[in-house]
Amino acid sequence: MKRSFIREILEAIDEQTISFAGGLPDESLFPVDDLAEATRQIVTNPKHFQYTVSNGIRPLREKIADLYNAEGFETKAENILITTGSQQALYIIAKYFAGRTITIEKPSYLGAVNIFKMNNLRMESVALEYDGIDIDGFRDSFGGTGLAYLIPDFQNPKGSLYSVEKRESIAAIVKKCCGYIIEDAPYSELYFGSKAPSISRSIPDQSLHLGSFSKTLSPSLRIGWVRANEKMIARLTMIKETIDLHSSGITQHILNAYLEDGARYRDHLEKLRHAYRDKMEYFAAQLRRIIPEFEFEEPKGGMFIYGRLPGADTKELVYRALEQKVVYVPGSEFHLGDGVCNEIRFNYTHSSKENITEGLERLRGIL
Amino acid sequence: MKRSFIREILEAIDEQTISFAGGLPDESLFPVDDLAEATRQIVTNPKHFQYTVSNGIRPLREKIADLYNAEGFETKAENILITTGSQQALYIIAKYFAGRTITIEKPSYLGAVNIFKMNNLRMESVALEYDGIDIDGFRDSFGGTGLAYLIPDFQNPKGSLYSVEKRESIAAIVKKCCGYIIEDAPYSELYFGSKAPSISRSIPDQSLHLGSFSKTLSPSLRIGWVRANEKMIARLTMIKETIDLHSSGITQHILNAYLEDGARYRDHLEKLRHAYRDKMEYFAAQLRRIIPEFEFEEPKGGMFIYGRLPGADTKELVYRALEQKVVYVPGSEFHLGDGVCNEIRFNYTHSSKENITEGLERLRGIL
Repeated sequence: MKRSFIREILEAIDEQTISFAGGLPDESLFPVDDLAEATRQIVTNPKHFQYTVSNGIRPLREKIADLYNAEGFETKAENILITTGSQQALYIIAKYFAGRTITIEKPSYLGAVNIFKMNNLRMESVALEYDGIDIDGFRDSFGGTGLAYLIPDFQNPKGSLYSVEKRESIAAIVKKCCGYIIEDAPYSELYFGSKAPSISRSIPDQSLHLGSFSKTLSPSLRIGWVRANEKMIARLTMIKETIDLHSSGITQHILNAYLEDGARYRDHLEKLRHAYRDKMEYFAAQLRRIIPEFEFEEPKGGMFIYGRLPGADTKELVYRALEQKVVYVPGSEFHLGDGVCNEIRFNYTHSSKENITEGLERLRGIL
Repeated sequence: MKRSFIREILEAIDEQTISFAGGLPDESLFPVDDLAEATRQIVTNPKHFQYTVSNGIRPLREKIADLYNAEGFETKAENILITTGSQQALYIIAKYFAGRTITIEKPSYLGAVNIFKMNNLRMESVALEYDGIDIDGFRDSFGGTGLAYLIPDFQNPKGSLYSVEKRESIAAIVKKCCGYIIEDAPYSELYFGSKAPSISRSIPDQSLHLGSFSKTLSPSLRIGWVRANEKMIARLTMIKETIDLHSSGITQHILNAYLEDGARYRDHLEKLRHAYRDKMEYFAAQLRRIIPEFEFEEPKGGMFIYGRLPGADTKELVYRALEQKVVYVPGSEFHLGDGVCNEIRFNYTHSSKENITEGLERLRGIL
């Protein structure tokens, strides 16, 4: 198995390097005071330090279910399995579907691709357009596989947002074929306009909807979840139990205490969306000014700007960029060696505005 | 895959049931004040809420390495991989050795057996005696498999402690055969006499030594580790990264802050050993008084008393016990269906003395 290029970079870069590589949230936007307060509330109870159930503490599952219910997506605590980040949710699901063939987007999230490989899932790629996966391609592929992995909201790496029409088409195809989609939605709360309806909502029994607090509150808590039908949750819980017994009870309790105040969480999300929209617009403006030959469309949410640098070999370039203390992820990493060599994924959430300008200037210097 | 009987019970029992089933530590012995203090120290730093490296934060790996160094087992931070409990360490290792044949003790830890099954490891069982695995059986089996899973300190379920002679024999056999042992040591600090030398110390490059803070500080933090040679750690880190990116940074930082005061941790362990020894002796005395026909030897540490109830079918009995609001784990669970039906594993650490007596009286009532 190939080491993840992104994680390798995360480990290799020093304090002086400006990183547009990882999908890191802006630390200055973590609600640290409120999380610290929630933590102080829960750390004095000895029971919170004990083993707990494999599917996750009930009050937190209830609160996650309520987030779905608030959007009209009927959900009970029994539909939720809490996992060590949504990365682990993906792993557990892949373990369950091991050996199958799965339809994925092209390009797709590298962390998922590695998980699928590790569990001997064969992958069939269908082109991802700016408004979502190619529907004809999806219909053809899903008819054979009956299983798909999609990131409809501000996809990683492309940043694309599925149109409502494509969402409806996909739901209709899945209903007809009797399979499952895995809808990975870590960025779904980070919209700049209005929230798109999940595909899963139309096919509640044929979907595994993945959520996470990593992009909205804190990745370090490592709390994500799967929403699926009760039978599927029971099966996945057995796998989860074997893998690590349960996710940290302490961080589940921290989140549960934090979420007691629903209005506070909603306000935080509002603030986050505004801050990230502002950063994206700043990054895009600086890109147009400093590297005008870079071709891209502004994303409508999420954490990434994806585009093309005509004539460049962005993988070769990244090593020179590292020497100049700036780094991004070359698009080839997401394309599984099919010759795409001039694309780049920039993360715009993690760096300060100062560093965004400075980092792009450094990049300009080596072009 | 069969649901873990123990986890099933943990989820099913109500507040009135006295449980001798799970391997739960005594909540009243958690160093809650000190852990809460450590938590307060670390929750105000935004960086602690960010993503971190897959192998675990360096200062904690260094502190774990120092625990080995203090015992003369030379270890660097690079020899340590931090995992979500040692359960996940086992899973990652099994994933690495997937498809191989592995020598295990008979009986063995059910959570490990499930992990091995899930990763298509074939298991060869060798009888576990009161002073460790049968050495002739081990030599024969390991010569073929080159891989073994052992719990030398206060084994789960049998509570047995390997003699120094058997430890040396095993190390010699492994050295000669060029394979690996997985030495699972979650209970190694819970000794009533003196600490036994790990087998791994004699074969540092041919061992994967598993440790955990779950039995000594808090299971809910979900922090365990593997100690192995650097190459092996690098391979396991790649798997770990794919499975869940990293274990909770917050709980790693809590432990790291707690362990800054090494003397405090050592004092806590001393206190724990005394308290558990006292509980074990109490449980054993009550057993002899209330259920004199139960045959067992007092363990020299750990969390379990294991023995035989002549003439009983302890699996059938457990359902009647549950009705009477008391529960244990029947030995058959650990024997993989080979006809052992009159054995019982009692956990003595979790219940209060009052409940120990009351629970054994309830059991007496149905015998």
